[in-house]
Amino acid sequence: FKKFRKYLNFDLLFPKSVFFCFHCRVFVNRSLTLENIKCYGFDMDYTLAMYKSPEYESLGFELLRDRLVSTGYPHELLRYTYDPSFPTRGLVIDTLYGNLLKVDSNGNILVCSHGFRFIKGSKLFVFYRETIQNYYPNKFIQRDDTERFYILNTLFNLSETYIYVCLVDFFTRCTRYTNLLKGFQHGDLFMSFRSMFQDLRDAMDHIHDTGTLKERTLKNLEKYVMYDPNLPVLLTRIKELAKVFLATNSDFTYTEVSFKHLFYDFIHYSSWRSFFDLIVVDTKKPQFFAGGNVLRQVDTHTGKLRIGTYTGDLQHGTVYSGGSSDVICDLLGVKGKDILYVGDHIFGDILKSKKRQGWKTFLVVPELSKELQVWEDKKNLFEELKRLDVFLAELHKNQDSSSTDPEISSIQYRMKVLTYRMDMSYGQMGSLLRSGARQTLFASQLMRYADLYSTSCVNLLYYPCNHLFMAPPVLVSYLPAFTRLYRE
Amino acid sequence: FKKFRKYLNFDLLFPKSVFFCFHCRVFVNRSLTLENIKCYGFDMDYTLAMYKSPEYESLGFELLRDRLVSTGYPHELLRYTYDPSFPTRGLVIDTLYGNLLKVDSNGNILVCSHGFRFIKGSKLFVFYRETIQNYYPNKFIQRDDTERFYILNTLFNLSETYIYVCLVDFFTRCTRYTNLLKGFQHGDLFMSFRSMFQDLRDAMDHIHDTGTLKERTLKNLEKYVMYDPNLPVLLTRIKELAKVFLATNSDFTYTEVSFKHLFYDFIHYSSWRSFFDLIVVDTKKPQFFAGGNVLRQVDTHTGKLRIGTYTGDLQHGTVYSGGSSDVICDLLGVKGKDILYVGDHIFGDILKSKKRQGWKTFLVVPELSKELQVWEDKKNLFEELKRLDVFLAELHKNQDSSSTDPEISSIQYRMKVLTYRMDMSYGQMGSLLRSGARQTLFASQLMRYADLYSTSCVNLLYYPCNHLFMAPPVLVSYLPAFTRLYRE
Amino acid sequence: FKKFRKYLNFDLLFPKSVFFCFHCRVFVNRSLTLENIKCYGFDMDYTLAMYKSPEYESLGFELLRDRLVSTGYPHELLRYTYDPSFPTRGLVIDTLYGNLLKVDSNGNILVCSHGFRFIKGSKLFVFYRETIQNYYPNKFIQRDDTERFYILNTLFNLSETYIYVCLVDFFTRCTRYTNLLKGFQHGDLFMSFRSMFQDLRDAMDHIHDTGTLKERTLKNLEKYVMYDPNLPVLLTRIKELAKVFLATNSDFTYTEVSFKHLFYDFIHYSSWRSFFDLIVVDTKKPQFFAGGNVLRQVDTHTGKLRIGTYTGDLQHGTVYSGGSSDVICDLLGVKGKDILYVGDHIFGDILKSKKRQGWKTFLVVPELSKELQVWEDKKNLFEELKRLDVFLAELHKNQDSSSTDPEISSIQYRMKVLTYRMDMSYGQMGSLLRSGARQTLFASQLMRYADLYSTSCVNLLYYPCNHLFMAPPVLVSYLPAFTRLYRE
Amino acid sequence: FKKFRKYLNFDLLFPKSVFFCFHCRVFVNRSLTLENIKCYGFDMDYTLAMYKSPEYESLGFELLRDRLVSTGYPHELLRYTYDPSFPTRGLVIDTLYGNLLKVDSNGNILVCSHGFRFIKGSKLFVFYRETIQNYYPNKFIQRDDTERFYILNTLFNLSETYIYVCLVDFFTRCTRYTNLLKGFQHGDLFMSFRSMFQDLRDAMDHIHDTGTLKERTLKNLEKYVMYDPNLPVLLTRIKELAKVFLATNSDFTYTEVSFKHLFYDFIHYSSWRSFFDLIVVDTKKPQFFAGGNVLRQVDTHTGKLRIGTYTGDLQHGTVYSGGSSDVICDLLGVKGKDILYVGDHIFGDILKSKKRQGWKTFLVVPELSKELQVWEDKKNLFEELKRLDVFLAELHKNQDSSSTDPEISSIQYRMKVLTYRMDMSYGQMGSLLRSGARQTLFASQLMRYADLYSTSCVNLLYYPCNHLFMAPPVLVSYLPAFTRLYRE
Repeated sequence: FKKFRKYLNFDLLFPKSVFFCFHCRVFVNRSLTLENIKCYGFDMDYTLAMYKSPEYESLGFELLRDRLVSTGYPHELLRYTYDPSFPTRGLVIDTLYGNLLKVDSNGNILVCSHGFRFIKGSKLFVFYRETIQNYYPNKFIQRDDTERFYILNTLFNLSETYIYVCLVDFFTRCTRYTNLLKGFQHGDLFMSFRSMFQDLRDAMDHIHDTGTLKERTLKNLEKYVMYDPNLPVLLTRIKELAKVFLATNSDFTYTEVSFKHLFYDFIHYSSWRSFFDLIVVDTKKPQFFAGGNVLRQVDTHTGKLRIGTYTGDLQHGTVYSGGSSDVICDLLGVKGKDILYVGDHIFGDILKSKKRQGWKTFLVVPELSKELQVWEDKKNLFEELKRLDVFLAELHKNQDSSSTDPEISSIQYRMKVLTYRMDMSYGQMGSLLRSGARQTLFASQLMRYADLYSTSCVNLLYYPCNHLFMAPPVLVSYLPAFTRLYRE
Repeated sequence: FKKFRKYLNFDLLFPKSVFFCFHCRVFVNRSLTLENIKCYGFDMDYTLAMYKSPEYESLGFELLRDRLVSTGYPHELLRYTYDPSFPTRGLVIDTLYGNLLKVDSNGNILVCSHGFRFIKGSKLFVFYRETIQNYYPNKFIQRDDTERFYILNTLFNLSETYIYVCLVDFFTRCTRYTNLLKGFQHGDLFMSFRSMFQDLRDAMDHIHDTGTLKERTLKNLEKYVMYDPNLPVLLTRIKELAKVFLATNSDFTYTEVSFKHLFYDFIHYSSWRSFFDLIVVDTKKPQFFAGGNVLRQVDTHTGKLRIGTYTGDLQHGTVYSGGSSDVICDLLGVKGKDILYVGDHIFGDILKSKKRQGWKTFLVVPELSKELQVWEDKKNLFEELKRLDVFLAELHKNQDSSSTDPEISSIQYRMKVLTYRMDMSYGQMGSLLRSGARQTLFASQLMRYADLYSTSCVNLLYYPCNHLFMAPPVLVSYLPAFTRLYRE
Repeated sequence: FKKFRKYLNFDLLFPKSVFFCFHCRVFVNRSLTLENIKCYGFDMDYTLAMYKSPEYESLGFELLRDRLVSTGYPHELLRYTYDPSFPTRGLVIDTLYGNLLKVDSNGNILVCSHGFRFIKGSKLFVFYRETIQNYYPNKFIQRDDTERFYILNTLFNLSETYIYVCLVDFFTRCTRYTNLLKGFQHGDLFMSFRSMFQDLRDAMDHIHDTGTLKERTLKNLEKYVMYDPNLPVLLTRIKELAKVFLATNSDFTYTEVSFKHLFYDFIHYSSWRSFFDLIVVDTKKPQFFAGGNVLRQVDTHTGKLRIGTYTGDLQHGTVYSGGSSDVICDLLGVKGKDILYVGDHIFGDILKSKKRQGWKTFLVVPELSKELQVWEDKKNLFEELKRLDVFLAELHKNQDSSSTDPEISSIQYRMKVLTYRMDMSYGQMGSLLRSGARQTLFASQLMRYADLYSTSCVNLLYYPCNHLFMAPPVLVSYLPAFTRLYRE
Repeated sequence: FKKFRKYLNFDLLFPKSVFFCFHCRVFVNRSLTLENIKCYGFDMDYTLAMYKSPEYESLGFELLRDRLVSTGYPHELLRYTYDPSFPTRGLVIDTLYGNLLKVDSNGNILVCSHGFRFIKGSKLFVFYRETIQNYYPNKFIQRDDTERFYILNTLFNLSETYIYVCLVDFFTRCTRYTNLLKGFQHGDLFMSFRSMFQDLRDAMDHIHDTGTLKERTLKNLEKYVMYDPNLPVLLTRIKELAKVFLATNSDFTYTEVSFKHLFYDFIHYSSWRSFFDLIVVDTKKPQFFAGGNVLRQVDTHTGKLRIGTYTGDLQHGTVYSGGSSDVICDLLGVKGKDILYVGDHIFGDILKSKKRQGWKTFLVVPELSKELQVWEDKKNLFEELKRLDVFLAELHKNQDSSSTDPEISSIQYRMKVLTYRMDMSYGQMGSLLRSGARQTLFASQLMRYADLYSTSCVNLLYYPCNHLFMAPPVLVSYLPAFTRLYRE
């Protein structure tokens, strides 16, 4: 490393004058100074190893689709291909009615689709025979009912989300099948939305258990996994200042091959393990943050587990399997609040490490690139919405209480149209973070549990290593800013 | 009512030119238009019937204190009197170590006191023998552990909070007792913090079960319950527009006497029941929002329950006991999203009605008056803090990564001092909502679950009945505002 | 004690020649030698303090009945009086349909009554419009469903059982009410079986919480509590050989008065506490056998709890409150298997102490007196049943498989009649232990969890203090005795 | 079938004069008449398809052993071979201390081994450094603690039981490893008993998930699966009288091949499906008896599942996958109490179907053959034990309470020796049902949940199809037989 270190003149690499684009920023929910971070932890998949979109999701989609057809689903399904413009992360499948829902943190329904058909919720669309209220009289779900509702928390779920929508679309349109409330009928056969969902989960388990997805990925790493020359730079820099560990749910073999790819033109790429003080595979997050499992050593020659548990001091370059967050703190001699953990899974990586262990958290959200781009491109829409918003408030203030101003309706209609146009700029299910002015469940979890977030962990490079990330002022402390007041 | 109605010229009562003070404002977390509200629900205690502070808390404190002494606690306890400047709502008792904690929504400890002694958390106070880390190595609690941590959610808990602090204070300072980690030793006797907490809960149950607190309150309603002439005005106005119900955990007798007091110079005060379409007592919230209980009719002459369940149509003026939120929706013919429920209990009234039933919510937070007052009075402190904040960010930007600027430390110290002074302006445990720049658990729950909040429900009067409450713009959608960027 | 001891010549008190009646026997489920018992534990109510039947149950019944009437139930209920011939212990209330059930250990229904009307289960009674199958198609209940089914485990439940039956009977026969499947309708009023059950539980809580039952009992101890001069003899004898403790759910005052009565003509009756090495009141069994509560000392002068927990050595005559089975073992220095615990509650005393702590158990079953008496009186019925049983088996052996012998039906009918006559000898719900040849839930729990059982704990006096109680041979080890074989 | 039927003259097949050996008997716990059974259900593995012992267990053992070695366990393990004389069904592994326990239904420890070394529990063996009390002070386990204790309920567990004992034995004796309380230490490596157990479970999952065990079994069905020509006879006979279904956790392919073997010299063996009215594979018992899964049709040509759920009428010969006990009752139109379900799994087949659904149950216990044989062979030991038992009771009766008769000790010693000799006749862990005079957990579950039991389901053939199985008289009803009375 000594030799390599001299090249790491960051001022040369990133002169201050350089344009600092949105995509490179790290956003802050709670202030955090890197100076106090004594240990950095990383997840691997979608965190250090970024999968190429939509290539990787397409691969997943095709494997799932083919598996479903091979288990008896109609061959017509093969005509469907993955459409990256449709699904976003954080959507919810209602396995009872086969709907795909976008909800806010309290369970209110923002968007609802049945197959590719969007169910209308607004009174503006009374001529539609079907509205959200038909399915959900209160436009609301109790999302604690995990038997019924399945939240698609990770980027790995995107292909799953889309294939489910394709299934519902196919059977809804196929004339051989009758549409019923909870599924489809074909002669003596009833296909419930629940059973279709179960079949999908089984197919997912199949492509994972048989290793099909991994195998196909490893065969063509360049197609599916991004290569970022800054990654070894980041890890080298961090390692000089703090302890670094890897905690991935993947197995050793997959981890090893992935890292060799990620570091391939780095001088000693084969020694990828030297970037970490501690490497833990098969972590079984989220259980990892609760009781965890037995910590085993991995034989790095064979990839097999050693029997028994290693109890000695931490040895550099050793790879472990299993364990728990508590064991990691012990081995590295750090406390939860001294750790910054970087991951992509809002529940398994971020919520759990924050809530159970008090770790500092950094969520990787590659979709932010697009979100930010749309925001740039559609600035004028945002501006107009904002203007209408202010105008509407003004109208309300001066309005006589007994009647409804027709101008108000017309503005509200205009706002709905603008909101819809804006939402469509993100994709068919709209933004990851918002629907009009309302936050999604994902956005509210991001704000609650992630201290920092960015499109990529490599963006940490653009900040000095003792940087103080400052959160925007906590609004509740400046209460008058909170509301537009009546009669002010 | 007809007769009364003509007096209700709101423009006369509240001319637009009138100064619209902070204390009368309704704050908004999520946009909501009153036009869509078809039904208003009210809790009684601390919502319609506002207790006078600190008189009512003092009464509770004294009853608890006397009960504890009568069960064997030392007579020296009688010297303590209630100090309203100490406790705030939303604090947490750690029954293991006897500490009183102020935490944020993720369980990070903001303030910690042991009796009246504040335990220091910061490195600035290294000369103290005791720091928060001694008790909580990670400065963090798993607040799901309800066996150990007790959250003081309501204003009713204030007296309880304070007496516990007095108990810990007394035994800590009493020379007869030796201080141990989990309690006090006196000869063969060990008094654990847990057993003291249990004794306190038992004393609380005693003054409730025997009706002592109620009896004392009813004897001197003028001393303990506020009288607001606007309350019948508000209820009259609302009733013209929407359905109104009362859902209180109190029993019928207490409810009846309280309302007669609240409406005493209203023309037909005895007919307080005519203000409501539906009156439900003994609601046992929060269970009321889950399965609920059998709905019984109350015999309004005797106060006793009728046997059996009423199954006919809703009859005006009838009083019910028990029931559930579902039954109320059925009886009134409304859906959850059409209801605005006004209550004071962040968990039992607001979180549960929102999360389980999708109701709109209005949280009554009388403490806001003081919070807003302090904010007004200490504007200069806030301003200076803000300036320092910006300056600190500036310093960080230009700072060389290898060294720590001494100026930074000095600013940080100044900010700590300012924060402390500001916090002390609120009371000894600081603000209900913040500690320095960090939000409390209470503040974050308020933001998540309450659509509206204000110091009193009567403030609804200052808004027209079809008012559109507009939330401040959702920040996550304007991402660049989120952080001060490095090298910008 | 020295002085008293010389009178304890057991051979004089119980000469071997004396007739050793059934009522004095101790029955054995699992062999146990008293020589190995190092510690005896006793419950108080219905164990040391035997309540007089039916006086005590009548008292409970009247208090419950009067409370129900005072809460609004019709005055006609006052005409009902307690009938000891109806209820037995171990019955189950189905709160959905209002039925009283007698079930076996697997949940099969043996007897079913609706009010005083017995619902027929057998094909012999096809002319009845109602059969058990109407309610329970499989003649079976899932008794794990504790929301619906309430098991009347103790003698304290007898009055409750009977009043519920009276309620169902009254409303069923009252012409003002219409009978529905799940309750009764009267105009707009629906009275569900579930709400009636809830009212009954509330009434029960009321007479306990207000202390009414205790007060009435203490006022007339001679009427309600048996006096047995052998009780102090037993305790004196046991105390010489082993440690003795009392663990009662009653409070100190009630315990003290009860014991003064029980020992009233004993020389030093006031020193009843000297009979025990350890006295624990307010034990809150069954929690006592799991985590338990804080152990407090009781001030025996005032009856109040001392604050704090006693941590010193065991002091003779001290009275404690709360605690747990683990604490008791520690204080007395004994292990679970060295303790013989004597109690009357099959679940709270016997099942829990056996299953959670491995204690030896002695169940007090006063009803055995009657069970044994009936068995004596109706010996001829038993004998005839036995003969018919053998004869039936013989017939089956020789029977041609294709046809059904008319003689078989006739014998089966005769057996049913005999079984019914026998059952009725015990009371209207039949025997505590059997219905015909099938064991009740209570009997199977008695056999599983009680090592010993008898009508009274005083019966231990009739056995030497190192007695080996031998269980009948374990049948499964002598398999051929298990079944009457075909074609033998 | 018509053609085949004429051969079914049972009197010819089983003349009454024939010796009716123990092995052919059906034993009865609760009376049951076949006349009332409208439906017979069968499990497949170890019920209809009996595996040859010890060939099949040896196969399982070797696969497990080899898998463990291939995952890193020492090659020395390969020296171990399966010893059928060691394990019995119903034992418990204590994963904390690595012990194998035989317990009674209340959790009292009857036998304890650590590897092949038996830990002594009795005072007679005080010269041993290790006793059961060292591990379990109360000689008792709380078997509800399923995290710690693993019950080996089925015959499939025998190989697992034995390999765990071999592992403990190996490491205990291997000089490279130090013995610690909870595992073994070797340099920096700690191998806990818990991790060894986890490795064993993983190995078991591996040989099942990869299909290794199935594959090896199918390759050599004649070696591993018994062929019983009476099986088709039994099914034919039953099918004439009642409905018949198969409910197996195996998949369709394995089921099909197994049945073709079982019926191979039957005329139309390929039509094995015609023996059943309903065939359900992949049942996932015990969940099958609770909520169950979606019912799918199996394509019998490909073995794959059809998509969707069949909703039409029951079609003969159709094979289903998944489902639940409720669905089966609906499809066949029968009630739980009309079904006799025949299985080998005391928990998954018998306890669950009895407790949750009220089915009649028949447990297949092949080990009974040996149990009965030993009982026959060692009759004289039993007789002597019985004599000593009576004699001991006699001695106790006449004994003076103050002293201990030396003769008693001598008899007790003799009884212990006899019990040990008897236990050893069954195998090293003793009988499946008893240890001395005490019943095992397995025996008590067998008595509680199985109405009938026998070495094989084919034994039903020896009883006429309307046979009344009569239970032995319920003992508790003949109380005086219960105990040997003192002073009688």
